[in-house]
Amino acid sequence: MASPTSAGECRVTFQPIGTRVVVKAGTTLLQAGRDAGLLLSAHCGGAGLCGRCCVTVISGEMEQPSEVEQAYLDSAEPGPGVRLACEARVSSPSVVVQIPQESLATGQRLQFSGTGSTLCCEPLIHAHQLRLSPPTLADPRSDYRRVADALDNVGHAHAWTMHPRAAAQLSRTARVRDWALTAYTRGSEVIGFSGPDRLSFGLAVDVGCTKIAAYLLDLQSGAQLAAGGVPNPQLAYGEDLITRLVFAARSPDQADLMAKLVRGAINDLAAKLCLQAEAASHEIADICIVGNTAMVHLLLGLPVQQLLNAPFVSSIDRDLDIDATDLSLECAPGAQAHLLPAIGGFVGADHVAMILSHGIAHSGKVTIGIDVGTNTEIVANNPLTGAFVATSVPSGPAFEGGHVSDGMRAASGAIETVVFVDGLLQFRTIDGSAPIGICGSGTVDLLAELYRLDYIDERGHLLRRDELVRAGKSGLEFLVVPAAKSGHGRDIVFTQHDITEIQLAKAAICAGIITLMEITRTSLGDVEEMVVAGAFGTFLDLGSAVAIGLLPRMPAAEYLQIGNAAGAGAKMALISSASREQARMIAANVTRVELKQHESFNRALARATRFPSKTQMSEAK
Amino acid sequence: MASPTSAGECRVTFQPIGTRVVVKAGTTLLQAGRDAGLLLSAHCGGAGLCGRCCVTVISGEMEQPSEVEQAYLDSAEPGPGVRLACEARVSSPSVVVQIPQESLATGQRLQFSGTGSTLCCEPLIHAHQLRLSPPTLADPRSDYRRVADALDNVGHAHAWTMHPRAAAQLSRTARVRDWALTAYTRGSEVIGFSGPDRLSFGLAVDVGCTKIAAYLLDLQSGAQLAAGGVPNPQLAYGEDLITRLVFAARSPDQADLMAKLVRGAINDLAAKLCLQAEAASHEIADICIVGNTAMVHLLLGLPVQQLLNAPFVSSIDRDLDIDATDLSLECAPGAQAHLLPAIGGFVGADHVAMILSHGIAHSGKVTIGIDVGTNTEIVANNPLTGAFVATSVPSGPAFEGGHVSDGMRAASGAIETVVFVDGLLQFRTIDGSAPIGICGSGTVDLLAELYRLDYIDERGHLLRRDELVRAGKSGLEFLVVPAAKSGHGRDIVFTQHDITEIQLAKAAICAGIITLMEITRTSLGDVEEMVVAGAFGTFLDLGSAVAIGLLPRMPAAEYLQIGNAAGAGAKMALISSASREQARMIAANVTRVELKQHESFNRALARATRFPSKTQMSEAK
Repeated sequence: MASPTSAGECRVTFQPIGTRVVVKAGTTLLQAGRDAGLLLSAHCGGAGLCGRCCVTVISGEMEQPSEVEQAYLDSAEPGPGVRLACEARVSSPSVVVQIPQESLATGQRLQFSGTGSTLCCEPLIHAHQLRLSPPTLADPRSDYRRVADALDNVGHAHAWTMHPRAAAQLSRTARVRDWALTAYTRGSEVIGFSGPDRLSFGLAVDVGCTKIAAYLLDLQSGAQLAAGGVPNPQLAYGEDLITRLVFAARSPDQADLMAKLVRGAINDLAAKLCLQAEAASHEIADICIVGNTAMVHLLLGLPVQQLLNAPFVSSIDRDLDIDATDLSLECAPGAQAHLLPAIGGFVGADHVAMILSHGIAHSGKVTIGIDVGTNTEIVANNPLTGAFVATSVPSGPAFEGGHVSDGMRAASGAIETVVFVDGLLQFRTIDGSAPIGICGSGTVDLLAELYRLDYIDERGHLLRRDELVRAGKSGLEFLVVPAAKSGHGRDIVFTQHDITEIQLAKAAICAGIITLMEITRTSLGDVEEMVVAGAFGTFLDLGSAVAIGLLPRMPAAEYLQIGNAAGAGAKMALISSASREQARMIAANVTRVELKQHESFNRALARATRFPSKTQMSEAK
Repeated sequence: MASPTSAGECRVTFQPIGTRVVVKAGTTLLQAGRDAGLLLSAHCGGAGLCGRCCVTVISGEMEQPSEVEQAYLDSAEPGPGVRLACEARVSSPSVVVQIPQESLATGQRLQFSGTGSTLCCEPLIHAHQLRLSPPTLADPRSDYRRVADALDNVGHAHAWTMHPRAAAQLSRTARVRDWALTAYTRGSEVIGFSGPDRLSFGLAVDVGCTKIAAYLLDLQSGAQLAAGGVPNPQLAYGEDLITRLVFAARSPDQADLMAKLVRGAINDLAAKLCLQAEAASHEIADICIVGNTAMVHLLLGLPVQQLLNAPFVSSIDRDLDIDATDLSLECAPGAQAHLLPAIGGFVGADHVAMILSHGIAHSGKVTIGIDVGTNTEIVANNPLTGAFVATSVPSGPAFEGGHVSDGMRAASGAIETVVFVDGLLQFRTIDGSAPIGICGSGTVDLLAELYRLDYIDERGHLLRRDELVRAGKSGLEFLVVPAAKSGHGRDIVFTQHDITEIQLAKAAICAGIITLMEITRTSLGDVEEMVVAGAFGTFLDLGSAVAIGLLPRMPAAEYLQIGNAAGAGAKMALISSASREQARMIAANVTRVELKQHESFNRALARATRFPSKTQMSEAK
């Protein structure tokens, strides 16, 4: 829980970074941003002239625009909620502000690489090089027929179909390109055209709650040509998925907005990747998308009301081939977007992709896999007992910097690793810049070290061991970085509240693992692979994770950090129909577990809230 | 050709009726409408108050709005080009005005029934009655899975797919309807839902240049539940298809407009039919559309530039199954629109539908079929020689009232039959109201009678036989109805120009028939069936048609008038996959003939311009 603000104070949250600061009412957003250690562009030095510090106020009250600001707003008409950060002053206890990428000097670190299995390319799309003769009175075949006959002639006889949008593109392109074309086909359908001698490109997308990652592949070779990530723009409407689902459930317009935001972000990202790979968006002939259940529902514009109440059922959870135009995605006119199937409820397509990419379904090994996010999905496969189950636990945003006083996402200035050397706290920040907050992996390290050095006890209570533990506004707090050494000139602290948040999150994950092991009749000693996927999982110190009991100690297990496995699964399914079939089998064969239905989960949860005994810990080290 | 207007005169054309009147500059549109015999609604008596006489000025200059009109336009903001007919005054030599249906007291007669073969129902859509149990914690299957399992249980095991739009509809409908539903399926795809115990409906559409006809059928029984027609709203942008293609080719926005107009008209018409049949638009689970090549290109938003220049090639001419949502058609969320294939060039899907509906492809009879419109399609099937060919001749709008001084479409007040009894001209008008013009069948009758009674010679020259033939503004003219007996108080005349227009049109059609007979090595005596389809063909007097040489005299042929055969073909294909397959076979097996490629066509054309010799004529009678 974030600590409450006093009268006359405002808590300002900056998205998509997720960093927070408390300032006095009447403070400008530019100043609040500086207090939070953010470098907002303000070329004119805050004179309200350049318009470079534009931000969007998502919620909370602001003072009326000053004359200077009003003049700017009247002339530039920058859209609803947009304010000049150098002039706009906060007036309500809580204000949420979205910083556009261009107003921010430093970006967020986004994990978009995954190890994945070796990719086996069996593309669903083929590119054909055609040299056609133009129509004449003696040969007045339709444009479609001319292409169909040419494809037949090069040995691809089919009852060729063609989407009218592809036919429209053909009639225009053929005449511009003097009838020298590349034709893209899927099965017996011609789905698009480009100029002569072009490749076919594919886009794999992983829509996460926090970030969207995308990969551009050559569909014939399977080679990755470009990759990138952007923050999910829905972040401005809620850090966690429940807030966004509630927002979308309120009205069709709000649901539309959620869909448009993510579709727009995918298009923007794809355009960047195309630029890198010297491709054109109409040459993207296939798309594969994974995401958690909530993200997929919002992307597709499906109703979400039934996801907000028990028993949390999806509208649809099978794999889908959707006309990409239905999702407003910019690509070949007849291209489809393939969505991987989900296991059910909140165990979504991203989890199927992760199981697919690491080969968990047929490695023959007793495997536990987790992907930590605001929801954490867990899978347990025990080939010895034949049980293969998965679940989702709401672990909250604590590991992504949410609900933690000085928490932030993994961006420039975030403390990402912590270690005490000779009783002195040492840390490393992302990019090496002056610290302005702590990201997920940093909080796990910090908690492990505080526990190791007896700053906290097994129940998570802060102990006044030395002067670093002191009375804060809302109880005891640990001083991580004093104001003098921080990037924003304020103390960076870790409060009793923060510790409780992390404790609850790690307990939920650990109890989920333990419960799935019980259900699959797996002992700690049985587990051969403990797989940790996702951005947080990649930068997490596994020793710290075991030390605080986020992960159970499994004596025989190999602990693996596999990066963005969901993205890797999306890539596999993009270029291989066999992988799509495997994904279907995974979705059909993995049993979804609803933890609330299992009494043992609550018992495990109570136990897991505590920290592991020191004896266990030293064994684990 | 329409005769030119003198200085200070304006020719006002009223659409969709197509009637014309010449008035002085400064005349109000209401007065011009009255002069043309049109009853425009004007409840306030022309005081500019009620706004009931609103019309849209499509082209031509008007005087500036009066104060009264400006006040109305400012308050009602009725959209671009809209004027109050009682106030707006014409100022340029030619003005085209579109009268909205609601401003017109009497409508246009539209042929929308066809005889067709007996319909054989093999529907592609099935309606399933489902009673589902709601989700519980113990049974948290997705909404999709619940439906798929229920369909499996009632003996329809499939790998059921479902369009996301259908899934969205399901999640909402199921909870409103307490899980009692009708599910619509096409093959293994669930395409939509309705409340319990509902039928599945299908819509067959014939998009003509002049009119759009639609039919609502019960897809299980094949029964027709409702039928209706509306003028094609594109008429306001050109009577003939070439004008509309040129308009659409000018810019993407104009092409969009053409598409939107016809899509909107289909939706409006479908809504009316649904009301009659107590159906809802989301219960329309299948759609079948036919139309000529130009109409289909405009409907689909395909490029049309290549249809405007030789060799006049289509973008695509095969049959298509298109997501109905791509055409903005209101129906079940996963419904498709099936478009019948075309034979090629301007021999379109409507002609395939006509061949299909009359069974011309496998009757075993030597058959000639024609469908007269602004383009006339002709088919010749000679089973004796194995030749099966079709062509399209641009016959112009003369038979639809265009380019004829007092021509009009088949609406109230149109002279539709003409006969001389004891030297006195007798006529019948549609609805029996006072005559205001002559429609297509009336002009054919009139021409036949004038020729029979030697008012015109074999070359089509008017002869001053008596005082009914007189000098008009632009040459000789025949007085059909004197001002005293007409509905608008002006003479109704038939000019030498008009005769030439009809002569050219009938010659093109007759020469087309003769040329196809040559190509198929068919003599006049071989023909067993001479089939005339379409609205004009239905009301045409066949004796008159043979007398003026519109149709050749075929001694052994049965002459058949089959009504809207294109619509009948659309209905067959709507309810039968076998009919769709037959249509594909017709499109593949009928050879498209480009008449300009055949020298004999020009010879035939020259001959056919003349009227048949009287000897021939009396034999034909």
